[in-house]
Amino acid sequence: MKWIRCAHPRHRGWAVVEGAAVRPLDRAPWLHPAPGVETIPLEEVALLAPAEPSKIVAVGKNYSEHARELGGEVPEHPILFLKPSTAVRDPGAPIIYPRLAQRVDYEGELAFLIGRTARRVPPERAFDYIAGYTCFNDVTARDIQTADEQWTRSKSFDTFAPVGPWLVSGLDPSNLTLTTRLNGVVRQRASTGQFLWKIPELLAFITAAMTLLPGDVVTTGTPVGVGPLRPGDTVEVEIEGVGLLRNPVEAEL
Amino acid sequence: MKWIRCAHPRHRGWAVVEGAAVRPLDRAPWLHPAPGVETIPLEEVALLAPAEPSKIVAVGKNYSEHARELGGEVPEHPILFLKPSTAVRDPGAPIIYPRLAQRVDYEGELAFLIGRTARRVPPERAFDYIAGYTCFNDVTARDIQTADEQWTRSKSFDTFAPVGPWLVSGLDPSNLTLTTRLNGVVRQRASTGQFLWKIPELLAFITAAMTLLPGDVVTTGTPVGVGPLRPGDTVEVEIEGVGLLRNPVEAEL
Repeated sequence: MKWIRCAHPRHRGWAVVEGAAVRPLDRAPWLHPAPGVETIPLEEVALLAPAEPSKIVAVGKNYSEHARELGGEVPEHPILFLKPSTAVRDPGAPIIYPRLAQRVDYEGELAFLIGRTARRVPPERAFDYIAGYTCFNDVTARDIQTADEQWTRSKSFDTFAPVGPWLVSGLDPSNLTLTTRLNGVVRQRASTGQFLWKIPELLAFITAAMTLLPGDVVTTGTPVGVGPLRPGDTVEVEIEGVGLLRNPVEAEL
Repeated sequence: MKWIRCAHPRHRGWAVVEGAAVRPLDRAPWLHPAPGVETIPLEEVALLAPAEPSKIVAVGKNYSEHARELGGEVPEHPILFLKPSTAVRDPGAPIIYPRLAQRVDYEGELAFLIGRTARRVPPERAFDYIAGYTCFNDVTARDIQTADEQWTRSKSFDTFAPVGPWLVSGLDPSNLTLTTRLNGVVRQRASTGQFLWKIPELLAFITAAMTLLPGDVVTTGTPVGVGPLRPGDTVEVEIEGVGLLRNPVEAEL
């Protein structure tokens, strides 16, 4: 199944994609929504980020080559950080390059959404808790990340969490090609098969500490090849079978 | 004014305290609520955490002696991290000591709640954005904090954000005595006058990066004297003119 959140004069919210049309839903896909009677042509709706999370849990250094490119060791377990819901950005909407930052990087990632309250989930049951998959750009002010040591501020600027274009279920996420393009040029290409920690292990590790609520986002880390954005650039995160998330970059006024 | 969130057979939600009674409100204090006609005796209600934030922004090392006790330098600007809303704990409810942790510390703090959307707030307008003040315990799994380097996981366990007992407005937060007691023994005593960064500077710094939404919590950092909790302990954070937040500690089953 493929779901979107969208804006249209007749509907604002979740919808299920049916070929070239979308059918409005009265609530999120994981809440057993009632489908609408009418459909709307897909080309008429504006896509919104397919996520309204209470929190975004992000994983650092989940590909060994990226861990090394940042100058660090490969950690013994996943490194977690949080991005605030205020950073969420719609597909197509500009990433705002903050005046405070000297270097802002893209980080293409596979993200998943939680479909039911998840606490101390054993790895073998992880997929029961996942509503679907989407593309994510873990935009990071690299200079601030280095200066602060704690990663939070550098990854929490408004617009630093583009997500979308839609939510997809019913696929095996274990070996998908992820490609990040900057102005059409490939900058990151990797397979989710290269994860240091697979999705079941990530979900077990996270939920051993904190409860994930329906709608929460987990983003799984970025591969080697991170690099700087500039105002005027366009960045794309494409994941095989999931979708293509494209955002332009604009300077903060 | 003094507000609570409470549970009672006739009302669950926000209320304003009027002496020994509480008057139900139909929404949060910063949303211009309509007061109820009836009141309820204060002693009949169960207190809930006076916060349902979209995010909790926390400040590290905002007292120089605490920065030194952690073995670090005094930083050049505030260090920010996020705690998830799933960590919020009601006054009186147990802090659950995780099986994963070897050392869990209390950190008594003054917190404030945001009353209106706050973005790029100049320091001189900061107090226009603050709905009120409350006590906060930034519970931290110290061994995990040290091992992870990133502070997020160690501070994000469920129950690691006790807050309350109520929200107070109309006071000057610039020179309040904060006292943390463990089983009745004073462990932290400091004045908010010792902050390295005062509240207006904190709010300006945070909102230069991220938008704060009404109801969001900012907690201002802990003074020297942090130390370990054990199951069976009771920890109190008391702030002059604000209130006393008391929570027992229980082992995770």
